[in-house]
Amino acid sequence: MTQEKLLDLLEQVRDSTVSPEEAAKQLAAFENLGYARVDHHRAERQGTAEVIFGEGKTVDQIENIVKCMMNRGAGNILITRLSKEKETQLRGKFPYRYSDAACLMTANPMEQTLVGSVAVVSAGTSDLAVCEEAAQTAETLGSRVERIYDAGVAGLHRLLAELDTLTKARCIIAVAGMEGALPSVVGGLVSCPVIAVPTSVGYGANLGGLAALLAMLNSCASGVSVVNIDNGFGAGFLANRINRMKGVDET
Amino acid sequence: MTQEKLLDLLEQVRDSTVSPEEAAKQLAAFENLGYARVDHHRAERQGTAEVIFGEGKTVDQIENIVKCMMNRGAGNILITRLSKEKETQLRGKFPYRYSDAACLMTANPMEQTLVGSVAVVSAGTSDLAVCEEAAQTAETLGSRVERIYDAGVAGLHRLLAELDTLTKARCIIAVAGMEGALPSVVGGLVSCPVIAVPTSVGYGANLGGLAALLAMLNSCASGVSVVNIDNGFGAGFLANRINRMKGVDET
Amino acid sequence: MTQEKLLDLLEQVRDSTVSPEEAAKQLAAFENLGYARVDHHRAERQGTAEVIFGEGKTVDQIENIVKCMMNRGAGNILITRLSKEKETQLRGKFPYRYSDAACLMTANPMEQTLVGSVAVVSAGTSDLAVCEEAAQTAETLGSRVERIYDAGVAGLHRLLAELDTLTKARCIIAVAGMEGALPSVVGGLVSCPVIAVPTSVGYGANLGGLAALLAMLNSCASGVSVVNIDNGFGAGFLANRINRMKGVDET
Amino acid sequence: MTQEKLLDLLEQVRDSTVSPEEAAKQLAAFENLGYARVDHHRAERQGTAEVIFGEGKTVDQIENIVKCMMNRGAGNILITRLSKEKETQLRGKFPYRYSDAACLMTANPMEQTLVGSVAVVSAGTSDLAVCEEAAQTAETLGSRVERIYDAGVAGLHRLLAELDTLTKARCIIAVAGMEGALPSVVGGLVSCPVIAVPTSVGYGANLGGLAALLAMLNSCASGVSVVNIDNGFGAGFLANRINRMKGVDET
Amino acid sequence: MTQEKLLDLLEQVRDSTVSPEEAAKQLAAFENLGYARVDHHRAERQGTAEVIFGEGKTVDQIENIVKCMMNRGAGNILITRLSKEKETQLRGKFPYRYSDAACLMTANPMEQTLVGSVAVVSAGTSDLAVCEEAAQTAETLGSRVERIYDAGVAGLHRLLAELDTLTKARCIIAVAGMEGALPSVVGGLVSCPVIAVPTSVGYGANLGGLAALLAMLNSCASGVSVVNIDNGFGAGFLANRINRMKGVDET
Amino acid sequence: MTQEKLLDLLEQVRDSTVSPEEAAKQLAAFENLGYARVDHHRAERQGTAEVIFGEGKTVDQIENIVKCMMNRGAGNILITRLSKEKETQLRGKFPYRYSDAACLMTANPMEQTLVGSVAVVSAGTSDLAVCEEAAQTAETLGSRVERIYDAGVAGLHRLLAELDTLTKARCIIAVAGMEGALPSVVGGLVSCPVIAVPTSVGYGANLGGLAALLAMLNSCASGVSVVNIDNGFGAGFLANRINRMKGVDET
Amino acid sequence: MTQEKLLDLLEQVRDSTVSPEEAAKQLAAFENLGYARVDHHRAERQGTAEVIFGEGKTVDQIENIVKCMMNRGAGNILITRLSKEKETQLRGKFPYRYSDAACLMTANPMEQTLVGSVAVVSAGTSDLAVCEEAAQTAETLGSRVERIYDAGVAGLHRLLAELDTLTKARCIIAVAGMEGALPSVVGGLVSCPVIAVPTSVGYGANLGGLAALLAMLNSCASGVSVVNIDNGFGAGFLANRINRMKGVDET
Amino acid sequence: MTQEKLLDLLEQVRDSTVSPEEAAKQLAAFENLGYARVDHHRAERQGTAEVIFGEGKTVDQIENIVKCMMNRGAGNILITRLSKEKETQLRGKFPYRYSDAACLMTANPMEQTLVGSVAVVSAGTSDLAVCEEAAQTAETLGSRVERIYDAGVAGLHRLLAELDTLTKARCIIAVAGMEGALPSVVGGLVSCPVIAVPTSVGYGANLGGLAALLAMLNSCASGVSVVNIDNGFGAGFLANRINRMKGVDET
Repeated sequence: MTQEKLLDLLEQVRDSTVSPEEAAKQLAAFENLGYARVDHHRAERQGTAEVIFGEGKTVDQIENIVKCMMNRGAGNILITRLSKEKETQLRGKFPYRYSDAACLMTANPMEQTLVGSVAVVSAGTSDLAVCEEAAQTAETLGSRVERIYDAGVAGLHRLLAELDTLTKARCIIAVAGMEGALPSVVGGLVSCPVIAVPTSVGYGANLGGLAALLAMLNSCASGVSVVNIDNGFGAGFLANRINRMKGVDET
Repeated sequence: MTQEKLLDLLEQVRDSTVSPEEAAKQLAAFENLGYARVDHHRAERQGTAEVIFGEGKTVDQIENIVKCMMNRGAGNILITRLSKEKETQLRGKFPYRYSDAACLMTANPMEQTLVGSVAVVSAGTSDLAVCEEAAQTAETLGSRVERIYDAGVAGLHRLLAELDTLTKARCIIAVAGMEGALPSVVGGLVSCPVIAVPTSVGYGANLGGLAALLAMLNSCASGVSVVNIDNGFGAGFLANRINRMKGVDET
Repeated sequence: MTQEKLLDLLEQVRDSTVSPEEAAKQLAAFENLGYARVDHHRAERQGTAEVIFGEGKTVDQIENIVKCMMNRGAGNILITRLSKEKETQLRGKFPYRYSDAACLMTANPMEQTLVGSVAVVSAGTSDLAVCEEAAQTAETLGSRVERIYDAGVAGLHRLLAELDTLTKARCIIAVAGMEGALPSVVGGLVSCPVIAVPTSVGYGANLGGLAALLAMLNSCASGVSVVNIDNGFGAGFLANRINRMKGVDET
Repeated sequence: MTQEKLLDLLEQVRDSTVSPEEAAKQLAAFENLGYARVDHHRAERQGTAEVIFGEGKTVDQIENIVKCMMNRGAGNILITRLSKEKETQLRGKFPYRYSDAACLMTANPMEQTLVGSVAVVSAGTSDLAVCEEAAQTAETLGSRVERIYDAGVAGLHRLLAELDTLTKARCIIAVAGMEGALPSVVGGLVSCPVIAVPTSVGYGANLGGLAALLAMLNSCASGVSVVNIDNGFGAGFLANRINRMKGVDET
Repeated sequence: MTQEKLLDLLEQVRDSTVSPEEAAKQLAAFENLGYARVDHHRAERQGTAEVIFGEGKTVDQIENIVKCMMNRGAGNILITRLSKEKETQLRGKFPYRYSDAACLMTANPMEQTLVGSVAVVSAGTSDLAVCEEAAQTAETLGSRVERIYDAGVAGLHRLLAELDTLTKARCIIAVAGMEGALPSVVGGLVSCPVIAVPTSVGYGANLGGLAALLAMLNSCASGVSVVNIDNGFGAGFLANRINRMKGVDET
Repeated sequence: MTQEKLLDLLEQVRDSTVSPEEAAKQLAAFENLGYARVDHHRAERQGTAEVIFGEGKTVDQIENIVKCMMNRGAGNILITRLSKEKETQLRGKFPYRYSDAACLMTANPMEQTLVGSVAVVSAGTSDLAVCEEAAQTAETLGSRVERIYDAGVAGLHRLLAELDTLTKARCIIAVAGMEGALPSVVGGLVSCPVIAVPTSVGYGANLGGLAALLAMLNSCASGVSVVNIDNGFGAGFLANRINRMKGVDET
Repeated sequence: MTQEKLLDLLEQVRDSTVSPEEAAKQLAAFENLGYARVDHHRAERQGTAEVIFGEGKTVDQIENIVKCMMNRGAGNILITRLSKEKETQLRGKFPYRYSDAACLMTANPMEQTLVGSVAVVSAGTSDLAVCEEAAQTAETLGSRVERIYDAGVAGLHRLLAELDTLTKARCIIAVAGMEGALPSVVGGLVSCPVIAVPTSVGYGANLGGLAALLAMLNSCASGVSVVNIDNGFGAGFLANRINRMKGVDET
Repeated sequence: MTQEKLLDLLEQVRDSTVSPEEAAKQLAAFENLGYARVDHHRAERQGTAEVIFGEGKTVDQIENIVKCMMNRGAGNILITRLSKEKETQLRGKFPYRYSDAACLMTANPMEQTLVGSVAVVSAGTSDLAVCEEAAQTAETLGSRVERIYDAGVAGLHRLLAELDTLTKARCIIAVAGMEGALPSVVGGLVSCPVIAVPTSVGYGANLGGLAALLAMLNSCASGVSVVNIDNGFGAGFLANRINRMKGVDET
């Protein structure tokens, strides 16, 4: 709730158009399921409905949260890190779309017009799951996505061949495990924001993705920022936000 | 150099308008000072001139790199992490602006029209240096900046009072040391991209800023990405890039 | 054994009311089962019976320890981190209460009058198991508990709506994984002791809960202390101790 | 501001006793000095005035913050981690008390009636500075403090000799560097809350205090919680809060 | 593609022998399978065909990549970290050789003349899998290999007895887990390059191989360099490269 | 082989009593099984036969190594970290004794006269496996062992009651997980060498035993040294060596 | 105080030979200087007087502790990690011996008959300070010491040439920085206890001595235990204790 | 000493040409200065004289070691990590060459014919010191060196412009701090061995060079191995060894 809306509300209270109890209720606009407080304000506050982190929630909890949101009209509800096993148990409970590759469910899916351009570029084939989580998140939220997979720095020409696509993107998601060098190289070639996603692909001194994470945080290229290891969702969400920005001159 | 320009160049070579030697030279458009290769293409490739990392470079090296860039017409050349001591030795060598608080020099400073809105919000007074590095970087590159300092989560009302400024920003830089909670709280309140900057402020288990860094990478709020510890420059650079984006409909 | 009791005992030895051998035995008031030394003094010394760490003990060991304690009259014996599988094998051996959600058994359960108020507030639904371990521990030891779950900082209004409950609590347990920001925000709102419990909920750079742990240790809010990752029991135990304190004026 | 006060305020707005603008101002009750937002609500919200973290602030900033608080009537304002050098520069600016041992300043000192009992027990002589920061913080806030220094576990009888003082305390602060074993041993002897403070005393594999911190977090004794390395202030603040609690029966 | 070949290509473009489109295609000489970009240039650029990292790829992906490479005439295609289970599923799809011990497949195997001498020396029997990955990689690429297994430093005479073989080798791969001391001892005895391979063999403070890795990086012997934990492939690849070098006088 | 024996050997070579080839063979007195070099010299060099690390070796390898050693007359051959499953497969291959609790096998067991006194003291019941590995190793090698289990520092009187046994021991093995405080407390009470064994018992911030390890390395008590996490074997081996020492006056 | 002495004391109390107050005093046999509790029992309990950790204590504190101990007749009082600067200020306060190389002071030095044999062997010249701290500690406590410096594993013959001295020692202290391989090699050659001391010598991935520490903890040689990084004192103390042991047959 | 020479020696002993005492002396061919054992065999064993690690040695120790080596005819003696201050004190003691940039001294410098080609390529200007240590080490040992500095991946064309030099090198040293991506990119372009040197250049999450180190260990390019952080010497030494190899066909 913006400051402006807050002042409006207070004025309505003063004018007795709204009772104090009603005002207090509006400030607390979420539903309490006991184990979860469903945040109905989020779309208004942040432009998209609440996203459900599927890991560590039971199938029943997920079903109830989704239905609670659908009752308030929410669509394209993202559920991340949802195992194939849970997906099977949710069949028939509500309409959805599910991606095996990304372990990503979209409950109550709706048509979207895709706009702009987000490029998802990856270092290797094994990064696919994270890439797809990123790409499908951005698409579900309304962005057009270009996929450039397996274009790691050990074979630079594979990357350079896609320079055209890269330079036309409004935002680039660069996904890499192992040494995580890809975002630095991409960052040196383009002039749009680059979101670096380290993955846990690798072994030994990759430390479960920490090596790639640290490399990306220390990128010598400007315009690069980083999200958590394997956090394709976070990258896709942010990329969509950047991609769909209005022009500075329009403001 | 974009793919398009590359094809142009190749066609000019075919038509003998440009010689192969000249083409090769254009592909290598930097100047070699021995200890540094000044990248004259960067502005074209990335929209801004090369930025000089002041730490670990001698005063002579800095002077030569700056002059080399000025000879090619560059202005508003940023030199980061430049100590007061080195600044003193550079007096009179070339025109510049210097900020003690941010250890940031702008060589050959030029007038800029500031556009859009970047908000820099910090958790505490001790984060000031990093905040100013971020704010002044964004300003030098052409963004209008709002400063909201010392608004950490232990006194939430201080932050909530600035909700209006926050929700109007096109990009927010959230700077915090210690537990690094600020970006998560800010991220939950706004709908623009949030760049989180961990600082080394704190002691003991802050591990020189790692605690804040890890917290920010694990942010439960969507739309948040992270840069290196104390990397105000990186945040300011990226925020400017996001702030100055053209609208998706204009593309 | 307090210094006072020690002096009493020594005086009884001097007066030959108690033999030196008997005195030595009283100083060693525990039972040795070979693999375990059951501490019968603990209730006297610390106000509650010994608590059994269920992990890494066999079902036989647990049964014997519990019975040994029950023989000395102990009730409400807590067994933490007890798997469902072990619980099944213990059926019929002795009376107990078991919580699947918390993996917590109370052997020889007894009625308690619940007093005061401990609030357990969590950041997300996935923190439920740790929360219940904390809440049920405090309840078993005699504290009244308020549960406020899924009130993380990415949707602040969910937390602020419970401000009334929070400010009335005598002690608050704040449970969070990921970035662990909740205790700092809660700590800034209340004037009672806050016990922060980091959880291992999250992935990647959460480092199995270390990110949340570090964040909580660096909390910028005063009045916050921290227990081990996922240590709901420890938080519940301490919260009960604080909640049940006598007033400073009564001393 | 409690929920109760908030409802009051809203009702006053409705009854036109308070204007919406005034209500908004009350919600934002802090003073903005640019580099700092002085939190005038904190005493009301949390029972004590804001505490100033001296490290990383300039002498001018500290002076202004203190005066800003004194103007609103605050007394016993704590400034932690304030170097001797800065203290010297602050002479004559405002009344204060300063402890060299603890690097702790109390601006605008006021008389306090000390109540209850907090025991500060340390493992070694080298932990003195942290102990004094804890002890003096608790005293400044109104608690009576008992000091038991250099009573580490390598000479248990030194600790056991103070058992009487320990068992009479309402809260114990256990301070130790190196292996950090003291809080576990103390925790096994008493029935009041124990706050463990790891210190950076030691070398090599002490990892700047991390070894002691980890040990304390893994304490096998119940009733122990932990604060940041060398955070004597945090321990003293929390101990005072616990020590001064009203009785559960009074509530 | 070397600079020389690049100039040739540009000259051919100028002379219209090659069209600009064709030139662009040659610069991008790889095949895009969507999830993988097969790098046909690598043999030319680096002397050996692309190596496939088997972990994290599906059986279908592997089959397609291999066939795509075989279509361009590649032989002795290495697939590392390929589980027995995947190998079973690949039977009959294309000709190959598979080593259970090394989890290493050689697709489209071809006869090789083995030259020079690479010695693989290991500290213990449990390092066998890594050793064989190294040894067989080097053999597949054309090097003669001597195996000296279980010759750790706790029984020095076992190593010293092989001094003759060691001093005759052109490159030595020293494989060790636990404390990783072997490469330092070997490095002190010979005058050829030594490649150290830390393994994850051990437990507790071996930290999954980090202890050995750190030891090897700090080797007091000169002429030692290190590859990733358990990276037998990397060591075998590099050893073959060194072993097969032409003489400095031949250049 | 001692320097003395070496000189003898050289003199025998000079006198042609021993041929150079035979001398070289004696210097290399081990058997090469390909995957293992069985060290027949070790008993002579170090007083006990080679010990076999069971983890990571196949059942066949273990059988062959044991038989190879038995052929040379070795008895009481220790095989550590041998799973129950492998033990089952080894039945009937050679005579042995096996402990489930310690996962320890003694092949070709022989009668021993137990001498001196080694005390194994543990903090908790869950440390049992490590304790038994230590105790049985020492017993197999000829030391009399006293077991004092579950005597952690949270109930000091349990430990103090065994002071008599502790002060009579010639060497003490102190085993603890979690905060690892036991060796420091024991070290402060006795005058014999104390070997500290950290265990991986615990969770969260115990970091798989690192917390206990670090604590023990930083012990404020003198006379304490440390072995690897869960390394009961190493502690038992060393304790036996110390326990069986001849007197300094006998030398 | 042993159990035996305790019983004696209790019996004396019963017979009224000793008053309860006197008994309590004897149990608390230390002197409280406020900042330090001087442990007069330690020599009796552990065979040597308390050792003073010089770092972090003021010159006044050290002087007072030493004098307090001398008043009770203590001699050869060790003060470790005492800087040259503090030593200068202590001149004339009490008799002492000081080693610049080891930063080690022996207050009230007394003649000792040196017995047995402790060998101190180091990897490199830069480990000298730690070696001397170890060697002089052992000498001060009564052990004869052999020094074998700069005999690291990169030049094995330097170590093998001292095999005679090594095999005659009753206890060996092996000191090494960098990769810390020395103790493993030494441990494989001898049959006496080996105390490994990691040093902080090195740079980069030596992590201030952690690399050597980890290596030593993972030593594949049996009979090796480890003390803290740079802890020459601890090694010397323990070596003396082992060296001076009575024979197992004498017990 | 090779096995062959050893047999020779033994035969000479048998034939009484060499006495056993003389043989023992030859096996121990080093000079003992007390604090250092100068290894005169090293040149024979490893092709180059012993290298002196200057850090942590006194000026006197260095002088004596150098003179001791010069007495045996050694030339081009490298002393690494020698501060300017120590160099000043060594003036006139013996002939030498000193590089300020590399903190590297060559005592008793001799003429060398430089052969082959080692390329040293660096990511940034701040890596200069490490680069020069590498380059000058290789030159002193006899290799011709090409320097390509400040060619980091954020401006790829700077690197690609030197492709010709890179592909002609027999061994490449790739030096980088920050994200350490350079060796992966270089490794993908060439077919000679690449030695990666991480530097401590950077700040925050570079963790003193660990970020670059980890990245390089995880390099997705084959043919890359790694040395310690800032270890220019180690890289230069190894590169020279590889560069000067004889051809495999000559063996």
